[in-house]
Amino acid sequence: MAELSVRSVLVTGANRGIGLGLVQHFLRMPKPPQWIFAGCRDPKGQKAQELQNLAYKHPNIIIIPLEVANPASIKAAAAKVGEHLGGSGLNLLINNAAILKVTTLETETLEDMSEVYTTNTIGPLLMAQAFLPLLKKAAQGSPSSGLSCSKAAIVNISSSGGSITSLYTWEICQATSYRCSKAALNMLSKCQSLAYKEHGILCVALHPGWVQTDMGNSPGQVPPVTVDESVQGILKVLSTLSEKETGAFLDWEGKVIPW
Amino acid sequence: MAELSVRSVLVTGANRGIGLGLVQHFLRMPKPPQWIFAGCRDPKGQKAQELQNLAYKHPNIIIIPLEVANPASIKAAAAKVGEHLGGSGLNLLINNAAILKVTTLETETLEDMSEVYTTNTIGPLLMAQAFLPLLKKAAQGSPSSGLSCSKAAIVNISSSGGSITSLYTWEICQATSYRCSKAALNMLSKCQSLAYKEHGILCVALHPGWVQTDMGNSPGQVPPVTVDESVQGILKVLSTLSEKETGAFLDWEGKVIPW
Repeated sequence: MAELSVRSVLVTGANRGIGLGLVQHFLRMPKPPQWIFAGCRDPKGQKAQELQNLAYKHPNIIIIPLEVANPASIKAAAAKVGEHLGGSGLNLLINNAAILKVTTLETETLEDMSEVYTTNTIGPLLMAQAFLPLLKKAAQGSPSSGLSCSKAAIVNISSSGGSITSLYTWEICQATSYRCSKAALNMLSKCQSLAYKEHGILCVALHPGWVQTDMGNSPGQVPPVTVDESVQGILKVLSTLSEKETGAFLDWEGKVIPW
Repeated sequence: MAELSVRSVLVTGANRGIGLGLVQHFLRMPKPPQWIFAGCRDPKGQKAQELQNLAYKHPNIIIIPLEVANPASIKAAAAKVGEHLGGSGLNLLINNAAILKVTTLETETLEDMSEVYTTNTIGPLLMAQAFLPLLKKAAQGSPSSGLSCSKAAIVNISSSGGSITSLYTWEICQATSYRCSKAALNMLSKCQSLAYKEHGILCVALHPGWVQTDMGNSPGQVPPVTVDESVQGILKVLSTLSEKETGAFLDWEGKVIPW
């Protein structure tokens, strides 16, 4: 198995949960990235304190103010990341930021459906558009042929809740707005894999497991997977991916999930 | 094969294409519905002329002003349909209205993604919510056990363009906004099938074929299926459905499409 080795990575929603876990695990790699861009909606807020402390100790973490539902914010973030990178590209874009509204089919509203879709589906699309020049540059600058996450990749953190085949945990939480947004994100990942292959960019949708995070926790239920287990699994899976897996939907243990 | 026999049906986007074709074929049935509610965004507009002419000749067609992206319009339409039906329920809701923007992955915008999702995915969700009491009433009033389209059903006109597995016609038209909205609509149909089964309502996603309509036509390409063939096929498929097929994704010839 090849080692995951990236010079630069951007993680959205990096201030807590799986996003923060990814940042921490990148730091602990034998050869950590030179730049870890940590996208965060409100870098000065209470919920970003832990990320701020981490960045204080590790100068390779660059906190980037980023609201993925806002095209202007994405554009500004891409410009900032580009400045830091100088002439080099971005190897890895991890679209992790997402929201979940605990709803039933009957309580869904136009507003909730729209808000969840904008953050969970449109956000990753706009992020990929804005960072495409930097991802292309990373791919062009890589000596290796084929596709890999060490070269250039877009990783969309999806959910098996978005598997139309399985409708994972429907009995616990219907959350139709979330499920629809993740099914659509899976479609987007597949479209990206086809459109960006010629640029040398791998694209994949990943289910991180049902994880002990603010989003995963629900009353009376302890999710089966810790953040550490999930993130460790995700990074291991990413290290194994090649052109065979571009466009796939995999879980944190590398298993294929049916659409 | 059982005959499709409904007392009342509502078709959205009924002024042209497949929607208008459905209205025409319902009229030609040996025992036409007592009420054919034809939802139409702009009943007085030029594009509704053919539907208006048809309604003039057939008093069982009731044209209902309906904008499926607008909750207030949906609410008003449900009230109007309820008045016409008096005490009886609605057998069949066909969510046919949809839009397509000819885009590439690179030219998608937040606005287009949002607009297409609102009409193609959120619309069918809100329609089902608003008409649920009337669909329930139809199910309760039916002497037959099990599920069927003659009893009570929601039919979401989807597209194999929304099949993540096949990405049908990607080379001809990327239209990521449309594909994402239809993958999400397929997810919605599955959610509806689980939530509404207990109410005796069948739910299904149908691909009408690539049809010779304003939406289906594209420069230099003649779609392989005529409106008549598509609608005839759809109505035949609907007549065969039972509880085994609720939550399925089928095409106009009855074949299962992979998600």
